Amino acid sequence: MKQLQDKITQEGLVLGNNVLKVDSFLNHQMDPALMQAIGQEFVRRYAGERITKVLTIESSGIAPGLMTALELNVPLIFARKQKSLTLREDIIVEKVYSFTKQETNEVTVSKRFLSADDRVLIIDDFLANGEAASGLARIVEQVGASVAGFGIVIEKSFQPGRQMLLDAGYRVESLARIASLSNEGVTFVDETAETTSEAVQQ
Amino acid sequence: MKQLQDKITQEGLVLGNNVLKVDSFLNHQMDPALMQAIGQEFVRRYAGERITKVLTIESSGIAPGLMTALELNVPLIFARKQKSLTLREDIIVEKVYSFTKQETNEVTVSKRFLSADDRVLIIDDFLANGEAASGLARIVEQVGASVAGFGIVIEKSFQPGRQMLLDAGYRVESLARIASLSNEGVTFVDETAETTSEAVQQ
Repeated sequence: MKQLQDKITQEGLVLGNNVLKVDSFLNHQMDPALMQAIGQEFVRRYAGERITKVLTIESSGIAPGLMTALELNVPLIFARKQKSLTLREDIIVEKVYSFTKQETNEVTVSKRFLSADDRVLIIDDFLANGEAASGLARIVEQVGASVAGFGIVIEKSFQPGRQMLLDAGYRVESLARIASLSNEGVTFVDETAETTSEAVQQ
Repeated sequence: MKQLQDKITQEGLVLGNNVLKVDSFLNHQMDPALMQAIGQEFVRRYAGERITKVLTIESSGIAPGLMTALELNVPLIFARKQKSLTLREDIIVEKVYSFTKQETNEVTVSKRFLSADDRVLIIDDFLANGEAASGLARIVEQVGASVAGFGIVIEKSFQPGRQMLLDAGYRVESLARIASLSNEGVTFVDETAETTSEAVQQ
């Protein structure tokens, strides 16, 4: 998605070889018009998938998730993150490890809002190691609902998350795919060059 | 706002005399069309106020905040909540006590996203004791920016937050004002009856 790549190039701050700071338009301050365009692009890519719910995780997934849900005219659910939790019968829980924060969180969704006939699009701001993404998929599958796929705003393609999700049979649509981060800036995956091998993989 | 009051009446769960659970459309699962209508209503009420930024707090303020910012075509900033914090020069910090969770959080906004010439509309999902709301106002005022007012989705009018903000000279626009919660359900403030005294107060 060119509009997003341009924004990353203009405003993204590269810290080391691993961290891309995008808090001027995605993670802390948000550009609402860009969020709307992101939601529209996810809906275009998942057209015909008969999605009944959008699922994301607090906090930075809420904005792109909401815009996607608005465009699809379906509810958005945001999973909550907590350090530890008293077990309760009315919630679905999965453990998710954060490499960034080096801690494990309990990620929860109320059972009232997901059912076996739901077809769920999972949205998140970043895909790196895929821990949060696969945790959300396990939540969906715990209730017997199906995952239509993932909609990722920024994918760090040099980390293993995307391949892990593809290997598990999921569809992954990432709007900006980053091949590498360095002092020279951000290099994006050349998607035209990749089309053939991807088509075979999927 | 009738559409919101109807939703609260239909789907809100009253727990005791103090707690209104609205996690089917505002706090966990979200109704995007209702969020959009809420954003449009805030913008209607604050028309002509020349707002340059919308400020809210994670997580449940993000959806109504984003829809308001989209309608105004200005950035949304969401303040982050943390238990404790290493002091850093690039952030604005205020302590906010949560009566619900009985804990004090550090609420932070990056200095890069607020400046003295900003005119800020503060959005939140709930107003009860006014702790979060006044913490956000202090953040705005720390950098010399001005608070255009507060846009609250649900106000518990039987708790002191609204009056505290009015006494401090702020404008408060709440889309649903709850007079009381009981086993019989939700009673809303009769705003037609209140207009005169409010007009005098403001």
